[in-house]
Amino acid sequence: MESELAALRADIEELRAEVRALADLQAIAGLIARYGPAVDRGDSAAAAALWTKDGRYDLGPLGIARGRDEIAALFAADMHQTLIGGGAAHMLGPPHVAVEGDEATAVCYSAVARWTGSAFELFRVAANRWTFRREADGWRVTARANRLLDGAAEARDLLAE
Amino acid sequence: MESELAALRADIEELRAEVRALADLQAIAGLIARYGPAVDRGDSAAAAALWTKDGRYDLGPLGIARGRDEIAALFAADMHQTLIGGGAAHMLGPPHVAVEGDEATAVCYSAVARWTGSAFELFRVAANRWTFRREADGWRVTARANRLLDGAAEARDLLAE
Amino acid sequence: MESELAALRADIEELRAEVRALADLQAIAGLIARYGPAVDRGDSAAAAALWTKDGRYDLGPLGIARGRDEIAALFAADMHQTLIGGGAAHMLGPPHVAVEGDEATAVCYSAVARWTGSAFELFRVAANRWTFRREADGWRVTARANRLLDGAAEARDLLAE
Repeated sequence: MESELAALRADIEELRAEVRALADLQAIAGLIARYGPAVDRGDSAAAAALWTKDGRYDLGPLGIARGRDEIAALFAADMHQTLIGGGAAHMLGPPHVAVEGDEATAVCYSAVARWTGSAFELFRVAANRWTFRREADGWRVTARANRLLDGAAEARDLLAE
Repeated sequence: MESELAALRADIEELRAEVRALADLQAIAGLIARYGPAVDRGDSAAAAALWTKDGRYDLGPLGIARGRDEIAALFAADMHQTLIGGGAAHMLGPPHVAVEGDEATAVCYSAVARWTGSAFELFRVAANRWTFRREADGWRVTARANRLLDGAAEARDLLAE
Repeated sequence: MESELAALRADIEELRAEVRALADLQAIAGLIARYGPAVDRGDSAAAAALWTKDGRYDLGPLGIARGRDEIAALFAADMHQTLIGGGAAHMLGPPHVAVEGDEATAVCYSAVARWTGSAFELFRVAANRWTFRREADGWRVTARANRLLDGAAEARDLLAE
């Protein structure tokens, strides 16, 4: 009887690990899916809160924001406010996510559509490489790098597995 | 021995709840992923069947359809048939989903691309807010609100968490 | 006691099947999410390795590639290399996936954005129908059909459930 109980315990432990792996992938995809709505509705604090306190948002030639205050400032700045005031959609595609313990990496595309007054245009299409850390209250972004896919090697390198 | 069995039962119950939560998220994402293919292949009945019998599709200035018949009629109408006859893709992005028991909410972008005869243009880019109900045979849409992201506050409000 | 153990075993077996179903859906979505990054960074071998050895990529008027060598050759060809060298994003949308044992089908949209030097344009928007097989080391693509959504019935038929 004791050995049968041990076998059941092992089965449950194995299932628990599989469920946790699935939940991690879903949590990280969910985090990425919250970015666009937050920045497009103008909730800079909610958007910055997706990052860890020491998180980084690297926009290449557009600059690097370090920490939640600098990241929130990006979204509060005139450039972003003018963009969303005129009509914009920061659309992030389905990510490819790889989890290793309490750290994770994701790769996805972002496409920003902008209303011109009579039509929508693709304002930016970029490669995105994210890293994440599991914190006490869940996964947060430690770094996001975003580069325009204009043929530059730097952008294409972000798409590595 | 009895207490060990009780502990295993509790572990299994906990896992069951976690698996159900993951399955709910996947089922709802799957429901949304079926919308575009249904309306673009012209299967109005399949598209309308994603909603509950009393479901609602609120297109703002383009009107509100109430119930499956009115929703199906939207897709059977000349405007939609001309659009898909000329070449169109109703592309819905990865949703952010929140489930509470037998009800759920999701937020996502939709981008409709249209073939102009020589190129594709972004015909509509919109914010979407969905609500769902778990019915006997699975999740269904109780309401979907869709607003063009042209800078109007109404569209941006749909993107709230 | 023996019957209680049997009940727990049955519960665990049921959970295992549910977890496996969720993992299958996630694995297949993950496979599709790896396609774009692989072809856009120019890793033809990694892209071709998403298919089974006897896999097929059917591009209609653009030809049919059979087997990994022919599929990799598509991505190594001038047409693709010129496209990604100038800046391109092969963005695949969230798939609707149906699994039956060791086989599966998925439907999704693909949108290829191209940098023109001053803006991005939607170069191709297409319907995609994928089939998959579970192999010893995981899911692989057995066939992908891709057709421009230009109003042709053939493309719309790919979007069937």
